[in-house]
Amino acid sequence: MYDVCMNRDENDRNKSETIASYISFEVMKIERDLHMVKGDGEFSYAKNSMIQRRAVLTTRPILEKAVREVCRDLHPQSMVIADLGCSSGKNTLLFISEVLNTICESPSRTLNEESPMEVQFFLNDLPGNDFNHVFQSLEQLEQECACRGGLQPPPYYVAGLPGSFYTRLFPCNSVHLFHSSISVMWLSQVPEHLGCLNEGNVHIGASTHPAVARLYQDQFEKDFSRFLQMRCREIVPGGRMVLTVVGRKREEVFDAGGTTKIYELLSQGLRTLVSEGRVEKEKLDSFNIPMYWPSTEELKQLVQQNGLLHITDIHLFEMDGSPTDESPESADGAPKGIAALAAGERMSATLRAGTEPLIVSHFGESLLDDLFALFARYFTSYIESEDEKSSIVVITMSLEAKH
Amino acid sequence: MYDVCMNRDENDRNKSETIASYISFEVMKIERDLHMVKGDGEFSYAKNSMIQRRAVLTTRPILEKAVREVCRDLHPQSMVIADLGCSSGKNTLLFISEVLNTICESPSRTLNEESPMEVQFFLNDLPGNDFNHVFQSLEQLEQECACRGGLQPPPYYVAGLPGSFYTRLFPCNSVHLFHSSISVMWLSQVPEHLGCLNEGNVHIGASTHPAVARLYQDQFEKDFSRFLQMRCREIVPGGRMVLTVVGRKREEVFDAGGTTKIYELLSQGLRTLVSEGRVEKEKLDSFNIPMYWPSTEELKQLVQQNGLLHITDIHLFEMDGSPTDESPESADGAPKGIAALAAGERMSATLRAGTEPLIVSHFGESLLDDLFALFARYFTSYIESEDEKSSIVVITMSLEAKH
Repeated sequence: MYDVCMNRDENDRNKSETIASYISFEVMKIERDLHMVKGDGEFSYAKNSMIQRRAVLTTRPILEKAVREVCRDLHPQSMVIADLGCSSGKNTLLFISEVLNTICESPSRTLNEESPMEVQFFLNDLPGNDFNHVFQSLEQLEQECACRGGLQPPPYYVAGLPGSFYTRLFPCNSVHLFHSSISVMWLSQVPEHLGCLNEGNVHIGASTHPAVARLYQDQFEKDFSRFLQMRCREIVPGGRMVLTVVGRKREEVFDAGGTTKIYELLSQGLRTLVSEGRVEKEKLDSFNIPMYWPSTEELKQLVQQNGLLHITDIHLFEMDGSPTDESPESADGAPKGIAALAAGERMSATLRAGTEPLIVSHFGESLLDDLFALFARYFTSYIESEDEKSSIVVITMSLEAKH
Repeated sequence: MYDVCMNRDENDRNKSETIASYISFEVMKIERDLHMVKGDGEFSYAKNSMIQRRAVLTTRPILEKAVREVCRDLHPQSMVIADLGCSSGKNTLLFISEVLNTICESPSRTLNEESPMEVQFFLNDLPGNDFNHVFQSLEQLEQECACRGGLQPPPYYVAGLPGSFYTRLFPCNSVHLFHSSISVMWLSQVPEHLGCLNEGNVHIGASTHPAVARLYQDQFEKDFSRFLQMRCREIVPGGRMVLTVVGRKREEVFDAGGTTKIYELLSQGLRTLVSEGRVEKEKLDSFNIPMYWPSTEELKQLVQQNGLLHITDIHLFEMDGSPTDESPESADGAPKGIAALAAGERMSATLRAGTEPLIVSHFGESLLDDLFALFARYFTSYIESEDEKSSIVVITMSLEAKH
């Protein structure tokens, strides 16, 4: 159970209210509040997901290879493909058009001239995801997926599938290819027994106790094992899974490079609000981001423990961690400081697009603008003080379901 | 092409704007604007769909029979079921829980003890439907579908599928059971060549020219034939289709009973606004509701023309047409007038929930409240003047795909 922390001087009424709010945090929050910011406004995920887009583009060759292999080895009459943690916005469509383009160019698709292969996509995310936005943007897809070389795309159908990927989502033996990009590092819940142990931090930071890091690791092991177990029931024999997560280059759990830094700066922003009396210390201490960045070795071990999947490819990419495609040194020689300010703003918007619902649910809405303004300032100082460009590590695995 | 009508004295600039707005009406409107009112506010479909609910309940035995027959005849390991025109709100969930309850009680589901049958639902509607609302309400389903007699429901998965049912929605041979309730009488578009021919009416009314009624009939024949053709590619041999539409008892196309009356009163409301100078006459003349209420005979003929389906059941129901379950004569003897006023309000809200987006797109938002206040008044007068309760005709067909 959740280890509730509170000020022992509070009266009983306050106590029970506080307990209730913490308990509801643990029991219900993730399914309801873990979603990117909806719509296409200033702080929406749709407008602030360049890093996630870069991950799809960086890992594209591995996805393409898996698609070609499914066509060649299984040549299904109707190919079922699921994107887990699809979110909303351009990246969702990018995945679909990538797959369709690859199938277009695959020699195996024309094996049966009379009844060509069809493709059924399932876009999955938690029920709080903005599926209306996804569905309304599908008509753009028809323009985007005009195949390279003038080939017609295969007939395709796109469904939305709400639900946690830590539960069963599909009937047995029904999916040929699973894909998930920058999603499976989200945990099913804040690690059990964490309570307020992670004082002053929202994630594994420099001042985090090793026991807290262990709780995070345990939760990831449990969740990722469950994820693989569920998918192994749903995938057809010989089917593929291409999973990309934000990860660590080093085994050292406290060091996920630029990613660790981002959440340390978010913690720093909240500590500043505590010091100004705008947030209660207990409120910060009991807030933890349900996310874990595994190493290549950790992922390999969990796949091997599962025993039903081959690892056909595994790659670690050190991606440019800047939230835009513009260079921090602007081309016309504008001062570096101006570019760093802009990068701070953009990283703040990117982080906000992914965490706002969780933060609002725990702290309320009133501190949002100030918190992310602080974060932008800290991030600007951080990149100004660094010589190297900040990078984000992503790890991609391609897995094959044993026959 | 659309037969554009306009005031010949208008200047050229106005003319081309008018043409552009009419053309965009024809080309884009239905896919974008044909959806029920979203969310769960006062005028939402979720809160104003009692008549549609009654249709599901009235036709339930036919659906149950089809579900049992699919289980018995096809005993699929994974049963794929599609609800076409699912809309949002309680009725969407009602369908799913009906099916699950029937499967629970079906002897065939336990044929294979080791791997019990699973069910995959697809909820289809146009991309403008409020799928977010549907997906967020799915957790209520788990409570509702505790099976009768303490049996566990089969494992089930629910996806949303955006798209027009006048296009292909599924891969070939992939669906065991199609269901559609109070949806297939919506046409794919306002009948071609209709233009302003249907002067002063929004549908087939008493003063409608027979040529207009013929255009409506032609459009329905084309659309319904296409609907059947698409579904016949998607359904497995021996699969079932249960279709319920609002229809006519008589062959006479001008007389769909209470349904005709409702749209005549809507036309009357708009004519009043024209006479007050608040709506341009041309604007009313060029607005037509894309809907047709077929007779049993018309439906039978179109199924026979298709040639790939058996009609296993066809029933006509005269349903209570009142928008609530309360009796117009209130139990404690309150004056009939008060009850009639309330019924007018409720029918107005029901009609508004289904037509508001179409009306707003054509006339703008400013007249909405006044139009539906007029409608409520006219409907109240209408039921006060009638001796019999107003009824709505629905026709349900159960079809089997030939082997």
